Amino acid sequence: MAMGEFELIARHFTRPSLPDSAVVLGVGDDGALLQPTPGHQLVISTDMLVEGRHFFAGAEPETLGHKALAVNLSDLAAMGARPLGFTLALALPVADDAWLAAFARGLFALADAHGCPLVGGDTTRGPLNLCITVFGEVRPGRALRRDAAHAGDELWLSGCTGEARLALALRRGEAWATGDVAAVADRMDRPTPRLALGQALAATPGVHAALDVSDGLLGDLGHILRASHLGAEIDLSSIPVAPALRGLAPEHQRDCLLAGGDDYELLFTAEAAAHDAVLAAGRMAGVAVTRIGRLTLEQGLHVRDAQGQAIHATVRGFDHFAD
Amino acid sequence: MAMGEFELIARHFTRPSLPDSAVVLGVGDDGALLQPTPGHQLVISTDMLVEGRHFFAGAEPETLGHKALAVNLSDLAAMGARPLGFTLALALPVADDAWLAAFARGLFALADAHGCPLVGGDTTRGPLNLCITVFGEVRPGRALRRDAAHAGDELWLSGCTGEARLALALRRGEAWATGDVAAVADRMDRPTPRLALGQALAATPGVHAALDVSDGLLGDLGHILRASHLGAEIDLSSIPVAPALRGLAPEHQRDCLLAGGDDYELLFTAEAAAHDAVLAAGRMAGVAVTRIGRLTLEQGLHVRDAQGQAIHATVRGFDHFAD
Repeated sequence: MAMGEFELIARHFTRPSLPDSAVVLGVGDDGALLQPTPGHQLVISTDMLVEGRHFFAGAEPETLGHKALAVNLSDLAAMGARPLGFTLALALPVADDAWLAAFARGLFALADAHGCPLVGGDTTRGPLNLCITVFGEVRPGRALRRDAAHAGDELWLSGCTGEARLALALRRGEAWATGDVAAVADRMDRPTPRLALGQALAATPGVHAALDVSDGLLGDLGHILRASHLGAEIDLSSIPVAPALRGLAPEHQRDCLLAGGDDYELLFTAEAAAHDAVLAAGRMAGVAVTRIGRLTLEQGLHVRDAQGQAIHATVRGFDHFAD
Repeated sequence: MAMGEFELIARHFTRPSLPDSAVVLGVGDDGALLQPTPGHQLVISTDMLVEGRHFFAGAEPETLGHKALAVNLSDLAAMGARPLGFTLALALPVADDAWLAAFARGLFALADAHGCPLVGGDTTRGPLNLCITVFGEVRPGRALRRDAAHAGDELWLSGCTGEARLALALRRGEAWATGDVAAVADRMDRPTPRLALGQALAATPGVHAALDVSDGLLGDLGHILRASHLGAEIDLSSIPVAPALRGLAPEHQRDCLLAGGDDYELLFTAEAAAHDAVLAAGRMAGVAVTRIGRLTLEQGLHVRDAQGQAIHATVRGFDHFAD
């Protein structure tokens, strides 16, 4: 990029430092300097978003700024971590002032809401590509790992799933989808990372494993089951159904709930003795949490309807990368 | 990408964990878990490399794997940090087994040499794009910052500059460039991050500011001068001239030395009383270090020849991003 473009970009991403942050030195040196809380462990996650694959070409930039950071913060939430900061690497075909202003607005509104400052970055010319890396911290031994589920654990879900998948279908004009796209668009475009809930759960004794649901409830549950060498039973009738999904045909409603994707809710396990503490953590974080099943020593994943009958469930996530 | 491609990619990037590393939990969960040394500060840097801009289309993948990590480790070196780990986000037009194998070989050979494990990543289909974020640690107050130079400091350079620029010119067939590209190609393709030197300097009292020379010696020195509100005098005849540069016309040799770019040497300042300690740090790290000038209270950058005459120096880096 020409120097003028670098200055343009720098203007949009240079901001006063947040008070009470861990940042000792931010953007502008060879590296950022952070001072984590002594003794804590560091949590790190990275995601790359490519135009035409993770978002539509011509996507609204403020929304894109929000979502690019949200999906990364959701990973910190799933580990039970407190955010410390993030880096942003950005390839842009052109440096457009209005686009950058809107992108930065969406990005920083979310960053500020969670006290997560931008600490470094890189900008270059190229096909539109956003790579965000987030850093958080957690007390040693308290991270919510995928391999930490116990047989007999209750299986919990925050919020509800399927609305983002419905929004995508409505936008694409898929025939089965009915309803008002405006009612569910934010669930696809502006996901809410469950950071307060993740931290509350990490501080709750008896909460064991967690991840964030990005590729569909069943597909992501499979990651916990494989890592923990366990099976699970899900009670379909216990999964909360968002109002927008209530008018769908049963099989489409079920697909949205179980395999929708892009939900960014937390799916987690806790011993039965922690049941009330989990409900309290949800209340403290202001997010509904619902027990939807349990972990079993016997491997395999079984979904049962209200009558206890087994449902043949395709464990297939909504795949961003499918050809 | 299709699932088979994900498995292919995972196979190339999944490895046993390094002994004695800070990694508590590596690739495969929502985030990696690291346990930094208690009380240390965290150093973070990120770089994005785009095909056709930072490397030639069709670049040899083993070389690319080395260089992508090397330029990031060089940023840690310039802060005086010890590497803890890195993340890799990769957009690939196609998952090619031979390409991935060679890329991973180059990447991990350098990572292993510096005890810097891959702790997380993301892979997607898209125009070739590599984004690496590195993490290191440094004792509080010991990071080598750009804003920490003092008036009267000696200005030092590790190794020598200009060979990478000559290699680029020979490869491009620029008329002024003479010599054997094989003798200098590694300086462009396989830069050596000066990590041992950076850490030795951070532990040396009286060493103040540092950065790594990526865009040309004078251009990068400008970053220290602006951040520290100082000027500098450089003695051109004191800058070491690599054998490959000795046959060049004086003005081209000078341009290579002062504005070559892609050198990944450390440029740093230290008080005069630390002169012998700096030489000792260089010996300990196995890298020549040369005093090439001094920092002045008077702002501005002056380059003088062997007779003390001022040279008009264009402070212009070799710009990866110039159109």
